[in-house]
Amino acid sequence: MKKLWGGRFKKEISEIMQVFVSSIAFDKKLAKFDILGSIAHAGMLGKTKIITMDESDKITQTLKDILSEIEAGNLAVDSQSEDIHTWVENKLNEKIGDMSGKLHTARSRNDQIALDERMYLKEEIIEIEKKLDSLQRVLLAVAKNNLGVIMPGYTHLQHAQPVLFSHHMLAYFYKFNRDKDRLKDLYKRVDVMPLGSAALAGTSYPIDRECVAKELSFSKISENSLDSVSDRDFIIEFLSASSIIMLHLSRFSEELILWSSQEFNFIELDDSFCTGSSIMPQKKNPDAAELIRGKTGKVFGNLITLLTVMKALPLAYNHDMQEDKEPLFNTVWILKNCLIIMSGMIETFKVNSGAMRKGLKKDFSNATELADYLVKKGLAFREAHQVVGKIVLYCIEQKKTIEELSIQDLQEYHVLFKEDVLNILSPKAVVDSKMSEGGTSTLNVEKAIKEAEEKLNYNINW
Amino acid sequence: MKKLWGGRFKKEISEIMQVFVSSIAFDKKLAKFDILGSIAHAGMLGKTKIITMDESDKITQTLKDILSEIEAGNLAVDSQSEDIHTWVENKLNEKIGDMSGKLHTARSRNDQIALDERMYLKEEIIEIEKKLDSLQRVLLAVAKNNLGVIMPGYTHLQHAQPVLFSHHMLAYFYKFNRDKDRLKDLYKRVDVMPLGSAALAGTSYPIDRECVAKELSFSKISENSLDSVSDRDFIIEFLSASSIIMLHLSRFSEELILWSSQEFNFIELDDSFCTGSSIMPQKKNPDAAELIRGKTGKVFGNLITLLTVMKALPLAYNHDMQEDKEPLFNTVWILKNCLIIMSGMIETFKVNSGAMRKGLKKDFSNATELADYLVKKGLAFREAHQVVGKIVLYCIEQKKTIEELSIQDLQEYHVLFKEDVLNILSPKAVVDSKMSEGGTSTLNVEKAIKEAEEKLNYNINW
Amino acid sequence: MKKLWGGRFKKEISEIMQVFVSSIAFDKKLAKFDILGSIAHAGMLGKTKIITMDESDKITQTLKDILSEIEAGNLAVDSQSEDIHTWVENKLNEKIGDMSGKLHTARSRNDQIALDERMYLKEEIIEIEKKLDSLQRVLLAVAKNNLGVIMPGYTHLQHAQPVLFSHHMLAYFYKFNRDKDRLKDLYKRVDVMPLGSAALAGTSYPIDRECVAKELSFSKISENSLDSVSDRDFIIEFLSASSIIMLHLSRFSEELILWSSQEFNFIELDDSFCTGSSIMPQKKNPDAAELIRGKTGKVFGNLITLLTVMKALPLAYNHDMQEDKEPLFNTVWILKNCLIIMSGMIETFKVNSGAMRKGLKKDFSNATELADYLVKKGLAFREAHQVVGKIVLYCIEQKKTIEELSIQDLQEYHVLFKEDVLNILSPKAVVDSKMSEGGTSTLNVEKAIKEAEEKLNYNINW
Amino acid sequence: MKKLWGGRFKKEISEIMQVFVSSIAFDKKLAKFDILGSIAHAGMLGKTKIITMDESDKITQTLKDILSEIEAGNLAVDSQSEDIHTWVENKLNEKIGDMSGKLHTARSRNDQIALDERMYLKEEIIEIEKKLDSLQRVLLAVAKNNLGVIMPGYTHLQHAQPVLFSHHMLAYFYKFNRDKDRLKDLYKRVDVMPLGSAALAGTSYPIDRECVAKELSFSKISENSLDSVSDRDFIIEFLSASSIIMLHLSRFSEELILWSSQEFNFIELDDSFCTGSSIMPQKKNPDAAELIRGKTGKVFGNLITLLTVMKALPLAYNHDMQEDKEPLFNTVWILKNCLIIMSGMIETFKVNSGAMRKGLKKDFSNATELADYLVKKGLAFREAHQVVGKIVLYCIEQKKTIEELSIQDLQEYHVLFKEDVLNILSPKAVVDSKMSEGGTSTLNVEKAIKEAEEKLNYNINW
Repeated sequence: MKKLWGGRFKKEISEIMQVFVSSIAFDKKLAKFDILGSIAHAGMLGKTKIITMDESDKITQTLKDILSEIEAGNLAVDSQSEDIHTWVENKLNEKIGDMSGKLHTARSRNDQIALDERMYLKEEIIEIEKKLDSLQRVLLAVAKNNLGVIMPGYTHLQHAQPVLFSHHMLAYFYKFNRDKDRLKDLYKRVDVMPLGSAALAGTSYPIDRECVAKELSFSKISENSLDSVSDRDFIIEFLSASSIIMLHLSRFSEELILWSSQEFNFIELDDSFCTGSSIMPQKKNPDAAELIRGKTGKVFGNLITLLTVMKALPLAYNHDMQEDKEPLFNTVWILKNCLIIMSGMIETFKVNSGAMRKGLKKDFSNATELADYLVKKGLAFREAHQVVGKIVLYCIEQKKTIEELSIQDLQEYHVLFKEDVLNILSPKAVVDSKMSEGGTSTLNVEKAIKEAEEKLNYNINW
Repeated sequence: MKKLWGGRFKKEISEIMQVFVSSIAFDKKLAKFDILGSIAHAGMLGKTKIITMDESDKITQTLKDILSEIEAGNLAVDSQSEDIHTWVENKLNEKIGDMSGKLHTARSRNDQIALDERMYLKEEIIEIEKKLDSLQRVLLAVAKNNLGVIMPGYTHLQHAQPVLFSHHMLAYFYKFNRDKDRLKDLYKRVDVMPLGSAALAGTSYPIDRECVAKELSFSKISENSLDSVSDRDFIIEFLSASSIIMLHLSRFSEELILWSSQEFNFIELDDSFCTGSSIMPQKKNPDAAELIRGKTGKVFGNLITLLTVMKALPLAYNHDMQEDKEPLFNTVWILKNCLIIMSGMIETFKVNSGAMRKGLKKDFSNATELADYLVKKGLAFREAHQVVGKIVLYCIEQKKTIEELSIQDLQEYHVLFKEDVLNILSPKAVVDSKMSEGGTSTLNVEKAIKEAEEKLNYNINW
Repeated sequence: MKKLWGGRFKKEISEIMQVFVSSIAFDKKLAKFDILGSIAHAGMLGKTKIITMDESDKITQTLKDILSEIEAGNLAVDSQSEDIHTWVENKLNEKIGDMSGKLHTARSRNDQIALDERMYLKEEIIEIEKKLDSLQRVLLAVAKNNLGVIMPGYTHLQHAQPVLFSHHMLAYFYKFNRDKDRLKDLYKRVDVMPLGSAALAGTSYPIDRECVAKELSFSKISENSLDSVSDRDFIIEFLSASSIIMLHLSRFSEELILWSSQEFNFIELDDSFCTGSSIMPQKKNPDAAELIRGKTGKVFGNLITLLTVMKALPLAYNHDMQEDKEPLFNTVWILKNCLIIMSGMIETFKVNSGAMRKGLKKDFSNATELADYLVKKGLAFREAHQVVGKIVLYCIEQKKTIEELSIQDLQEYHVLFKEDVLNILSPKAVVDSKMSEGGTSTLNVEKAIKEAEEKLNYNINW
Repeated sequence: MKKLWGGRFKKEISEIMQVFVSSIAFDKKLAKFDILGSIAHAGMLGKTKIITMDESDKITQTLKDILSEIEAGNLAVDSQSEDIHTWVENKLNEKIGDMSGKLHTARSRNDQIALDERMYLKEEIIEIEKKLDSLQRVLLAVAKNNLGVIMPGYTHLQHAQPVLFSHHMLAYFYKFNRDKDRLKDLYKRVDVMPLGSAALAGTSYPIDRECVAKELSFSKISENSLDSVSDRDFIIEFLSASSIIMLHLSRFSEELILWSSQEFNFIELDDSFCTGSSIMPQKKNPDAAELIRGKTGKVFGNLITLLTVMKALPLAYNHDMQEDKEPLFNTVWILKNCLIIMSGMIETFKVNSGAMRKGLKKDFSNATELADYLVKKGLAFREAHQVVGKIVLYCIEQKKTIEELSIQDLQEYHVLFKEDVLNILSPKAVVDSKMSEGGTSTLNVEKAIKEAEEKLNYNINW
């Protein structure tokens, strides 16, 4: 394979270096974008008369042919090339001879790789947004279909207060919504066209960068050539946002795993997202959820990789930056698959509302309500809290629930207790009392579902 | 110290737990925000008649007094308290007795701490934006004052092409500009009012969350109580953006350290940002730059800390989340100081343009220009690249510079070389030829400085 | 405060730099070791006649006085000093005047800080080993006291096979045992005396490094001065080993939290390691376990901090390395406290064997045993696994346990089932069948406890 | 492809799950070890009469055939299988039918994968040790061949004191020596045989684990089944040690990059480890060193990945743990290649002693020596330091070197200066004065090289 350099060298690079320096195994993923970028570049070189229109046409047409061949599956990227740019130029050379050498006029691999990565990432961000959208739709559907289901709400993994299962689903809806916002914000910083920065200083050819940007659907061009080829902020920011998405997925996975345990038994995952054991015939394991939780570590690792790589690098391009691709591509792969699988799991699990209801018995999760009752009768909250704490302790020792106490029992703890207290203690009553905005009452949740649906439909054309 | 809980417990927590569980050493930083939040909350409780207007007035007034005392330096947060919320409520209790117990009506420490952190972070983000702004102004001033200075531009730490020193300064200007954009974007997600989510489910009191939000200058209220108390995205996103800021600072620091070395000698840092050696009397070390570079590791570590802490936590609040404060406060401290110190270093260093000029001799950084010359005469770039590569190799072997070759020498490599080639080889000529948008020509850089100044002035009222 | 350098400088360092560069807030922890190291150094300077015996005696005696004052609480490290070395030398100067200037002969702060850190870490490693030892003793006691208790053993958080609760406790015993081995191994690499490397190149004074090493109880001296002052491997290795310890503690904590949930209810943590809620009177939260789990993130962050700091630093000392102290000291603090608290939690929890027993009903965790039964009768394991898989599916559909099936029912699935199959299905029978080395049978576990006790007693004199 | 489970399932896993859950793409690397482990297991099953000797022989012989086919390149692992264990068992089934089902008696994939990974890692650790050894030999050779070369020694990247270039090479020798020690220490913890732990609880078959351990050359068997299948400490510890190796390589790479810059020009890297630029014909970039420095980030990321994955996982096996393979295999690949390439670079670079010598002029790196001169004449070190600091400042202002000062000039700063001071100021004199153990004098370095050679030869049989 011909290299794009070498006149000044007396010796070939060593064989092991050849393997080590090569990025082709990863950046072949960029073939499409590299070619599209080259087509736009060649077109512009023609329009600005840096090369002739004939040359320009010949080059762009041949590049289009190469792309078609690849997309038809008739041409595979050769893993012997140093990188994707070299491969494309060599391929062009095979077809049109030395004229291929005109393509690299007024550009460098330094601005070219930045272009390819930005084009790739723009496309993938939109894919990921769509998958987040789908997951949100699944959450809304599940929330709608289970509106009556009450579950124990937890803090510190202890029963705290009853909540609607749908409210819990919506909590994740909002987390993923922030993720989409973050992606939209960072998209602006990806959507910047670097080509024309050349190696580091710009070029003396009368190029037209705005024309290339327009051709490739970029919103703006980069403003400083040195910054442009030394910058990988846009990838790091994407890896950061991805880490938060995975964080959300890991928390959801953790809950699915807990809920699938014999002890919780809140849901049953569908067979299609579980596997068995090679030794224990009874096992049905929540593998999909575990794998998503595990992949979280990989994405955090990818983020740390690129932060470490870029730390303290002097301007402009350094070869260390080649290490940006593996973390980027791997993270995109993980995100897309995890989002699809999470949607599938949520869509197909069975909700065991009976087990949730049973869990609410004897759990004292109505204790706050009891304290609030006293407050509404005039007690200071601190004092009410103390009183109810003692009632709970008494119940535990007597192995009773609060509901099983008589009004007389309660009155021994405070005279403000009246008969009406009995109406407020059921899980349903507790849930529906939480009318504050964002609270878990059925009315609130119904309203939230409606608004969320509208939000999704509005977003659809982003 | 009185705790905010305990009725249900038979035993005190162990002494070592007392130390371990306490967050007061960190969250005393939040005293101001905790009190302001409580004032707004108490005001709302009065307006909605959940407590009487008298109670509300009494509580808010006393809280204001406490805040004044703290700000006057007459009251210090007691490190024996479990946390800042407990301390404030105890302080209130000392002053107004049991009525203090009414303040905690309709809220929990879970939504309260989220509120405090968001108020704190909103204030600090604006501080950091201002410091980024100042640093950018310094960069512009330095760029303006050194417009004629040409330095070697580097890729792979090898001389690549000459660039204006001012162009290099502007590269950082744009990096910090993206940092500001990121902060602005994430600010929207910090600027969400969580109070009223209570422990996890909302509350049954007829609270008015919009009123509290308005009082505390929040743009919107959180939409789901479970999400609201389990969410630390806003801190992680801040730590991510901070990591990128530190990345930029670490790269700049690395360059300042390189440039201060005897070998480069491109700048001299001011004595006020250097220290000496306890053993070597001649030493003047670029400590400030080294420390900033070192602090980068700390901020990356802070990011990994919180990502790890939050991974796979089930909803809603878990005590692990207390570990968010140290990384947050520490990162804010580091950022603010590093930005101030970087500004100081840049503002006071001496630029040694002579050493830069000398570095451009014999470095062949005009070789690309020579290749482009041939291209403009009609050669394909690939071929021109090969020709010039051979010329460079010849010069190295003959210990000559390209400028020292005669036109005859050059013509032996290619007939297209004519007398006019001699005009394009000086660093100044090379620099000024780079007229493409974002390139390093003097005209471009002058324009860029003007535009950057306007950008800064426009931003001032954010 | 006097600095240890400055003759060559024309200007003071800027005020903010003073704060930023100062490490005294952290390294005051090293005061004791700095002084002990200086005493040994001064003693050696006297013996080798580099200073007079009188000077040596005066200096060492005064340093001892200073140390006594500190230890008696009569002298506090002044936070205005640049670092601990400067503070000690200034203190000495106050007491004996200019003779104090002789102490710094033949050494530098570069080798001095390396010495201090190594002395500190040697002491702390032994402390941590002791705390690991105590935790192991607690585990053994709990294992011994609960020998009859059978619990569900989990994989994928699904019931897999019944195991002895004591076997589970011993699993952690062995994890912590590996941790101790790791600490012992790395101790060898901490126990190397760096003083005498001076700034980076050694010294021209006729010092005696072996004498200092012996005085300070080091096993060997460092072999290369450049390596010696540029090396922080010993801290990184300690942070790595600490990360694994925290990993183990986080897994144990996760289990304690799960087991404390209403759903599992396997244990009850003692009140002394729990706290309550400011709003929900019934709450008793497993805070200690959550905090330990959370601190894990901090230690991982500390590790990443130092790895990032040290990455790509040229030799020898760079100021970035000052960032090693906070992660080191913080990690030591966390480890010691987490180990004490974990011991306390384990020692005091109540084991609810009834809940565990109940959990084993209907969980099919004897299914492997059933398959093994068929294998022992001659079936290939793969086939047996299939047969039992079908039996389990049938039971789930019929809402039966395997024990509830008649021998006829079983024989419909395979003719090899005979009456004797009924004896092997109880949790106790399943557990005690696991006689392979390291397996969970009661006999094995009793033996393991005995061996573990001997191992601990043998180790005691390390 | 047949699965090793499924009787209990009513539905196939979804297609995307099939891709997601599969680990075959990575663990095909383990084929050899999986088969060797199975051979040992089957042999033991025969000896203990759990299966018949005939069955045992048939199975082991067929497995050996499969291994031979793979090694001969006639059989490739099929990427459709769920994992390597499934693939091997299916392959066996194709050849011997249902008898293959007997192989999985008394084991689980949980203990099997732990076995495979440990066998793999044992082999690779020895490979890495050998490569570290080779690198050390290269360092010694370079140290020996350049004994007379003096270079500026740096702290804070400022000239500090002159050192022998060979001394600098030896500094890395010792760093890599510690790395080897670490690997040796952790090898003990890898060298533990887990098979027989079965799924988590051990097995009821009368297996002989010591026999398997012996067959597979393990030093000991694991002591607790639950610990054994839940443990990945040995991989994390390896990744930690690898991170430190990469840290050392990154520091060395940084120096090679610096030294290759036009400004330093201390070495010239061989063409075989450099590449050029697609646009700048003169460029020769230190790619190999940059790539090694970059790969450091990847290894740190791998460490963080596995730490994050394992954090807070309850016992015993969880599917998250599948994420251990990619970081492990990738790290091994990186380490081996980086070590080979670093050896190659060092072996072939040209040392430019002239540039180093030139660098020592005017750098005041003999200032410490001058201060020590005064001390030896009786001045306190602190005072001497001040005096020399002033001399340096004077020289800078006068643009003179210390050597250019007359004895009268010096005496104006202190009367103790005598004629003999002129003998101690040359780089050679300064270097050779550093006679303290571990110091940079020629005598010391010669001795160190000899000892290092002996150390390597002694180690060879490890």
